[in-house]
Amino acid sequence: MTDSRTLARRIAETMLRGEGTGPSWGVRIEDADVGYSKISMTVSDVMLNSHKIAHGGHIFALADTAFAYACNSRNQATVAQSASIVFTSPVQNGERLEAEAREIAVMGRSGVYSITVRGNDGRVVAQFQGQSRTVGGAIVEE
Amino acid sequence: MTDSRTLARRIAETMLRGEGTGPSWGVRIEDADVGYSKISMTVSDVMLNSHKIAHGGHIFALADTAFAYACNSRNQATVAQSASIVFTSPVQNGERLEAEAREIAVMGRSGVYSITVRGNDGRVVAQFQGQSRTVGGAIVEE
Amino acid sequence: MTDSRTLARRIAETMLRGEGTGPSWGVRIEDADVGYSKISMTVSDVMLNSHKIAHGGHIFALADTAFAYACNSRNQATVAQSASIVFTSPVQNGERLEAEAREIAVMGRSGVYSITVRGNDGRVVAQFQGQSRTVGGAIVEE
Amino acid sequence: MTDSRTLARRIAETMLRGEGTGPSWGVRIEDADVGYSKISMTVSDVMLNSHKIAHGGHIFALADTAFAYACNSRNQATVAQSASIVFTSPVQNGERLEAEAREIAVMGRSGVYSITVRGNDGRVVAQFQGQSRTVGGAIVEE
Repeated sequence: MTDSRTLARRIAETMLRGEGTGPSWGVRIEDADVGYSKISMTVSDVMLNSHKIAHGGHIFALADTAFAYACNSRNQATVAQSASIVFTSPVQNGERLEAEAREIAVMGRSGVYSITVRGNDGRVVAQFQGQSRTVGGAIVEE
Repeated sequence: MTDSRTLARRIAETMLRGEGTGPSWGVRIEDADVGYSKISMTVSDVMLNSHKIAHGGHIFALADTAFAYACNSRNQATVAQSASIVFTSPVQNGERLEAEAREIAVMGRSGVYSITVRGNDGRVVAQFQGQSRTVGGAIVEE
Repeated sequence: MTDSRTLARRIAETMLRGEGTGPSWGVRIEDADVGYSKISMTVSDVMLNSHKIAHGGHIFALADTAFAYACNSRNQATVAQSASIVFTSPVQNGERLEAEAREIAVMGRSGVYSITVRGNDGRVVAQFQGQSRTVGGAIVEE
Repeated sequence: MTDSRTLARRIAETMLRGEGTGPSWGVRIEDADVGYSKISMTVSDVMLNSHKIAHGGHIFALADTAFAYACNSRNQATVAQSASIVFTSPVQNGERLEAEAREIAVMGRSGVYSITVRGNDGRVVAQFQGQSRTVGGAIVEE
């Protein structure tokens, strides 16, 4: 466990505690590192669309949350500029989803990240690509 | 008000009532027509990220909901396949957001829609492009 | 015809002349205005994929060119940051394509544009959403 | 070298030979496997935009070509449905670009692929995410 990895974990935990969203969705941090995060969430009634499967907006929101932890992991405040998502499999009520974010590249203040969301059985349910922009300011005190 | 417009409204209302998401987010239907919808939502504490602005995932989810009502408006069950979003302005707590979905094209079972999300003051806060696929089955009885 | 419209046209023409791409693809400017452009191109043998229909990359490239003229129309050098495209209909050899770019929003140095590509018969063959960033510097002398 | 790997290579070579695009752009196949391809192309004068850097449309087109070889590698004709790209670094005239496509998931007739484009010095110049749909029919005789 390196210092930068410890810092990344502390940043993710600080962000999650400070959010309205993550705690209300039951988001848990499974892992965090520089340019990396893995988080989980269990789909509940209030996350279903009218077809009684998980709303795509909630699957996106989970991926976007993993993206946020990964792109802020160097302790410089960073925001999402754009993102795209492909939905590959419906998600049932009660399924535990896991979103894993990996950094593809950072060039100056811009970054690009790839996030894969998997269901209970490990199948890919969505693939997300996000573009970040560093706006500056620290997330936690070092 | 044409029959197809009345049907589109009824479909949107039926979908909203049947969801776990929309009612819990306070989504309201402002307008609905064939290939069209306009909905609103007011940002609350549980929709904020750690920077205390609206979480991008929630802005996406609102746009995705407007997209769903527009692409199901012909009473054939239709799902999102992919989507992309550009975030253009931060959104404050308490802001009322309006998402307006327009159909660009439908070719066979595929469709593409453009959704604009605006803030309190009418500024664009996000632009969303979604691709749908019709899977069949009716939403409401005609 | 306003001054800003004349300027937008002059910028598009200057950009096209200065490119390696547009002239080699036979791109023509049909219209240009502030935040707007309409261009055309006829699909030829070298633009076909192995299925003998227009390569998606060429359809994207046409849309991206219309996007470039629209987002540079205020005479401040601007580049694409990200884009997404949905392909809605195959395009045949010899078809004349028209790409029409509209500005959705500009906020500071960021902009978002919607580009629709149509075929011979007016059907939509692709829908493109692009995000721009102004980097500064003029395209033409005013 | 497995049979499926040999087949993937043969499919990519057959596709490239049958295209108008790849040979005219000087595309070379560096590697091919099931759900995978790596191709290269050197940027020339006709690929430049008016800023004298590689046109984003050409970078997209290269990524889209790698995507096509990867998603057709099981010898079932497959087409792109949608794609998104983030541009991370400008590309100079004369640079050799390499696009590497990896399969993220295939579910029924839908697939999702991640393509990274790198420049001369190995830096990431673009990241692409593509969604495919299998339409059937073989590319080569087995």
